[in-house]
Amino acid sequence: MPQPAVAILTIGSELLDGRVQDTNANFAARKFAEQGLRVSHFLSCDDRLTDIDAALQYLTAGCDLIVISGGLGPTTDDLTREAVAAFDGLELVMDPALLSALQERYRQRQRTFDPSNAKQASRPQGATAVPNPIGTAAGFDLKTKHGKRLISLPGVPQEFELMFNAYVLPLSAKLFVTATQKRSAIFKVFGLPESTVGERVAALNIPHSISVSYRACFPEIHVKLSGEISAEDLKELQTSAITAVGADAVYSCEPESTLDSTLHALLLERKLTVAVAESCTAGLLGYLLTNGAGSSRFFLGGVQTYSNQLKQSLLEVPESMLAQHGAVSHEVARAMAAGARQNLGSDVALSVTGIAGPDGGTPEKPVGTFFVGLAEAQTVRSFAHHFPFSRERVRIYAAHTAMDTLRRHLLGLKIRGDV
Amino acid sequence: MPQPAVAILTIGSELLDGRVQDTNANFAARKFAEQGLRVSHFLSCDDRLTDIDAALQYLTAGCDLIVISGGLGPTTDDLTREAVAAFDGLELVMDPALLSALQERYRQRQRTFDPSNAKQASRPQGATAVPNPIGTAAGFDLKTKHGKRLISLPGVPQEFELMFNAYVLPLSAKLFVTATQKRSAIFKVFGLPESTVGERVAALNIPHSISVSYRACFPEIHVKLSGEISAEDLKELQTSAITAVGADAVYSCEPESTLDSTLHALLLERKLTVAVAESCTAGLLGYLLTNGAGSSRFFLGGVQTYSNQLKQSLLEVPESMLAQHGAVSHEVARAMAAGARQNLGSDVALSVTGIAGPDGGTPEKPVGTFFVGLAEAQTVRSFAHHFPFSRERVRIYAAHTAMDTLRRHLLGLKIRGDV
Repeated sequence: MPQPAVAILTIGSELLDGRVQDTNANFAARKFAEQGLRVSHFLSCDDRLTDIDAALQYLTAGCDLIVISGGLGPTTDDLTREAVAAFDGLELVMDPALLSALQERYRQRQRTFDPSNAKQASRPQGATAVPNPIGTAAGFDLKTKHGKRLISLPGVPQEFELMFNAYVLPLSAKLFVTATQKRSAIFKVFGLPESTVGERVAALNIPHSISVSYRACFPEIHVKLSGEISAEDLKELQTSAITAVGADAVYSCEPESTLDSTLHALLLERKLTVAVAESCTAGLLGYLLTNGAGSSRFFLGGVQTYSNQLKQSLLEVPESMLAQHGAVSHEVARAMAAGARQNLGSDVALSVTGIAGPDGGTPEKPVGTFFVGLAEAQTVRSFAHHFPFSRERVRIYAAHTAMDTLRRHLLGLKIRGDV
Repeated sequence: MPQPAVAILTIGSELLDGRVQDTNANFAARKFAEQGLRVSHFLSCDDRLTDIDAALQYLTAGCDLIVISGGLGPTTDDLTREAVAAFDGLELVMDPALLSALQERYRQRQRTFDPSNAKQASRPQGATAVPNPIGTAAGFDLKTKHGKRLISLPGVPQEFELMFNAYVLPLSAKLFVTATQKRSAIFKVFGLPESTVGERVAALNIPHSISVSYRACFPEIHVKLSGEISAEDLKELQTSAITAVGADAVYSCEPESTLDSTLHALLLERKLTVAVAESCTAGLLGYLLTNGAGSSRFFLGGVQTYSNQLKQSLLEVPESMLAQHGAVSHEVARAMAAGARQNLGSDVALSVTGIAGPDGGTPEKPVGTFFVGLAEAQTVRSFAHHFPFSRERVRIYAAHTAMDTLRRHLLGLKIRGDV
């Protein structure tokens, strides 16, 4: 039998007028590709019954499975249910269980249940509900009269991705995937430019049967190796790729882990408490360190000393030091970290001070210059960095650099920017 | 005449297997939207003659202009020229000038000119060349037998964007942009669920000629009104929609503005300084308040008092109060705000304390419960909220609620969650 073709239909005027960059089609395509399934079309059309009908006519002509994203919300421009029902000549039916669950959900949140919300509990007759664990709009899965499979999911990426992984992938695997399994392995890099990572991996001359893909999720690079390969060979390939890139820059090989979750686990394992002193990041570092549940077990708190005045009053950074070296300096980064550790009573403390821009740069300290301080009981160190990009990127990069500094310190790895 | 519809066709297997996230369609859509032109479809298909032909059949049925991205390279899987020529029953012809320019280009780069490269200098008979100032593949512009316009550009984003701006936009302006321009107006809402916003706008019975679209960019809802309407009527419609939704919940009508930039401007105008005391948000509020350049003119800093110990030592929250009411309470929110204002020396101070979850909820204070404190010289107030969603969403919503609390306070608007 020829390989089945799959299509992704994304619906919404916010896509077509460019307000929103669709990411659901790309996400679904990647996941299907990992299963070895071929996506033959992406299509985006407006929230109009005629447009959606024409799109379904076009896609079902060549494809066996259509995944539809969007148009399931409560507003008048959400028409996917109606359009799919009309396409297959079906009525929309209300699901009493979904409806009461929906009403209960609104009750719990003390939100008034507008009648318009009820339609989120309806679906074309004969379709199966696709549960939405985090949103109000359930999806549905319809087998059409002509034996095509139409699966409709909400367009909100968080919900689409969750429901796609939980419902669509197992189904497509069951329906379409053959014996020869594709395997894949990833690793996640922080602190190297994508071009450098690419060059170092390319130098390995990885066989053409293995596809290497790079995903830049700023400020990280995620590298993926995939192909029809034995688990052992894949592991070996992954190890050599990590060595080539630089093992110290690879903070994890887990798909779900992040730099903060990696540091979170490390700090719990070492039974260390942390405090922060933030200037240019103004709280981002503390926010990232507490992304995970249970972070109160290691994170005590911090101070956002945006003004020099507060650097003095909350962290005892000497006025003379600020005057002599400037707030963005090795000296002040160290004094901030030491002051935070002292005043907040943590085992270790991290500080960040820098020039996020767009203004405030000087020839000696251009925009993008920042310093990370690291204080322990006995030692206080500081590290200089220069990342000359947008204000937003400088702040995100600086906060991640501070986390990576502590990760490297705890693992005994070389720390970049050392004096 | 009805408004012309435009479609974007992106060609390439690297899109369909998810290796590459297409950005050309979004780029083109934004540019067309600025001209008031309606993009009715995005379509992505494989580099196959049959697929491209079917795609052109489908799109030309409803659209007057199709912009095609990709498939113009030198390799065997670059088939856009052949496919477009076949679609309109034309021969491919070689452009001698382009060919020698191409050969010269290869000479300059000391690259051998493989015969396969020659096809990059060919195009369907009767088509006009679209110059490519930075790459090897020229594009082409074909007026089909049925009076449709097919413009084919390289898929490389830098080349696509450059050639789109230089060739397509001036052409589409000349061809399609009429006196009765499509106009649009937006407004941005915080603090109401999308369904409520939708209900209230729908109740206005806005004429069908005006399209209303909702974009949920958590934690905000952006509403867009667009259609062929006079500037005056649009303004009137926007005003009545804002009134219907609730003017106090609409923080801006500017496409570029955010809740933090709105507050930023308001604080500069009032010449007020701000400090923050954050518990569950752990720094996010301070980070958001400093998103904009020049925020040091109003933001002094803050304390991330994640532990109760630090709430006492940095903010003088009485231990007895923490014991009696708990860290997540009106009393502690007020004490935190007052303490921050006192110790950091700001005109106003905001505090956030809450249960972000997933653990730590109680029957009286379930996950998603949070309090915002607001301290001024004379008065300290606090506001109770319940937003029972994921840890990530609770924290983002709480930080935005704190900003919105100050915005409403400064504008003399009702503040939700008041005791």
